[in-house]
Amino acid sequence: MRDVINWGILGAGNIAGALVEGIREAGGRVAAVGSRDAERAAVFAGRFDIPASYGSYEDLLGDDGVDAVYVATTNELHHRNTLDAISAGKAVLCEKPFALNAHQGEEMRAAAQSAGVFVMEAMWMRFIPATVALLQMVERGDLGEIRAVAADFSFQANAGPEHRLVDPALGGGALLDLGLYPISLAMLLLGEPTAISAQASIGPSGVDEQVAASMVFPGGQVGSIYASFLADSPVEAHVVGTEGRAWVRSRFHNSERLDVVAPDGSVTVHEYPLAGNGYRFEVAEVHRALLAGETESSLRPLADTLSVMEVLDGIRAQIGVRYPGE
Amino acid sequence: MRDVINWGILGAGNIAGALVEGIREAGGRVAAVGSRDAERAAVFAGRFDIPASYGSYEDLLGDDGVDAVYVATTNELHHRNTLDAISAGKAVLCEKPFALNAHQGEEMRAAAQSAGVFVMEAMWMRFIPATVALLQMVERGDLGEIRAVAADFSFQANAGPEHRLVDPALGGGALLDLGLYPISLAMLLLGEPTAISAQASIGPSGVDEQVAASMVFPGGQVGSIYASFLADSPVEAHVVGTEGRAWVRSRFHNSERLDVVAPDGSVTVHEYPLAGNGYRFEVAEVHRALLAGETESSLRPLADTLSVMEVLDGIRAQIGVRYPGE
Repeated sequence: MRDVINWGILGAGNIAGALVEGIREAGGRVAAVGSRDAERAAVFAGRFDIPASYGSYEDLLGDDGVDAVYVATTNELHHRNTLDAISAGKAVLCEKPFALNAHQGEEMRAAAQSAGVFVMEAMWMRFIPATVALLQMVERGDLGEIRAVAADFSFQANAGPEHRLVDPALGGGALLDLGLYPISLAMLLLGEPTAISAQASIGPSGVDEQVAASMVFPGGQVGSIYASFLADSPVEAHVVGTEGRAWVRSRFHNSERLDVVAPDGSVTVHEYPLAGNGYRFEVAEVHRALLAGETESSLRPLADTLSVMEVLDGIRAQIGVRYPGE
Repeated sequence: MRDVINWGILGAGNIAGALVEGIREAGGRVAAVGSRDAERAAVFAGRFDIPASYGSYEDLLGDDGVDAVYVATTNELHHRNTLDAISAGKAVLCEKPFALNAHQGEEMRAAAQSAGVFVMEAMWMRFIPATVALLQMVERGDLGEIRAVAADFSFQANAGPEHRLVDPALGGGALLDLGLYPISLAMLLLGEPTAISAQASIGPSGVDEQVAASMVFPGGQVGSIYASFLADSPVEAHVVGTEGRAWVRSRFHNSERLDVVAPDGSVTVHEYPLAGNGYRFEVAEVHRALLAGETESSLRPLADTLSVMEVLDGIRAQIGVRYPGE
């Protein structure tokens, strides 16, 4: 592994562009981009000043100058793209949802372990300074014993019938794209839930347009989350403890602020400015791990990712959302 | 019926004292108080300058000078006290929860209808000016189509083993005392849910110390609520619409403020100062209805109260909380 990590971007959509900046801010080099559409790849390369572009994912993965791949395709492709990248010996940062279901996720983990290749879910929330501070705050007991975590993630997507968010074949639905954030936050703080119940509103295409879930955790804590692409909700999180509560301002997954409310009602504001591209923190973790020769991130191990996938599977079973081939 | 309503207070606890002030601010007269403990009743009467006190509920209900009774006993007594008051021909404002379950509630409604006596649940939130304004805002469509309602109601009760909140025999649990508020708000706005799922943390005495529920409503809206007596949560409500959302500040059930967030992020603050005792609004509704000769409030009809009781019954069945005799 070189001192500077050379990245290949697999997919050429909006999120891919955002990561290019994050990679550079984290000191990485973007060596190439690959898309199924050669022109789209070339346009992306030109726009972001990337030396190489490929008209197929295979060609990107065949580039010896690429150390790590960021999988930025639509949800249903994450599994295939990650397996192919592992086969090509590339480290992988895979956009969330990591896979369509836990079974796919297990295959990805097994392949990575077998090949000794680094793989991490792009759960960037985990590495945002405010999230890190929140976890430390909870770990230190600053909020006392945690009793509840509540969070929401909804925005008005105005998703027409062609939008990926409503297409079951592309792994659409509010849960996998949005609900996964509040669920991941609750699980970061409280571990695996012992029980979950969910309700959803299913749209004409068969995916969940809105979903709400109630959880209980081993310590008796409750989780209360909802997600939707039909309207703008606060997109905030509340971590309720016996000695105070933390209010993570919008959007909680990349917040720059924690308001801690003490039992006497007094509020202490902690600020954690992103001061740049919010994706650079997860990229920095990939860099650190790769340079240390690690095959998983200790901060976002695949076990955590797969726990979340299992919860998502359980919720989908309850709300009756299945993807083609499941 | 006289021009000034004469009230009897059935029970002599904290909530009873709060209502005495509300009754007076609403122009009513507090004629008597009754408790199972004559001394407690006398102390209460002295403290609040009430002309008569009785050492039994029966004696209070036998007082011809009393037009209306406020039932302020513990949860398990609301059913019996209300039935007895109806038998005595007294109008009833019954503290929430209206009953332990929908079956009790149905009996209370049937008795009231049969006797032609006014009965209303003391769901004071319904009459708070901010709530009234919120309902009008939603009705006018100011927030577009409503997509979600989220609310929480938790506080740190430090309830020892003797506390009524943890006693199943007294109808304890977070759901009936606290969860009922966010559920009632969601149902005021969205009607009866088509499906509900809940999870809870059950304490050593067998009641729910914490509860979270996910709901879906006929228009596909979702509801996300939680309640607990183990820690202080925000106690706020969010009403999420396609053209804006309303943030009802703590405590949402008697808030003095609605912050309306437009799709462009701009916030308009609407203030609704209580300017006095928050209970006086529900009392004023009782006065209005009684003087008009009505036997139910059109703003909080018993049908609404019973719908909520049915939801509470359904949640308790899911979380496994039963009261003695059920």
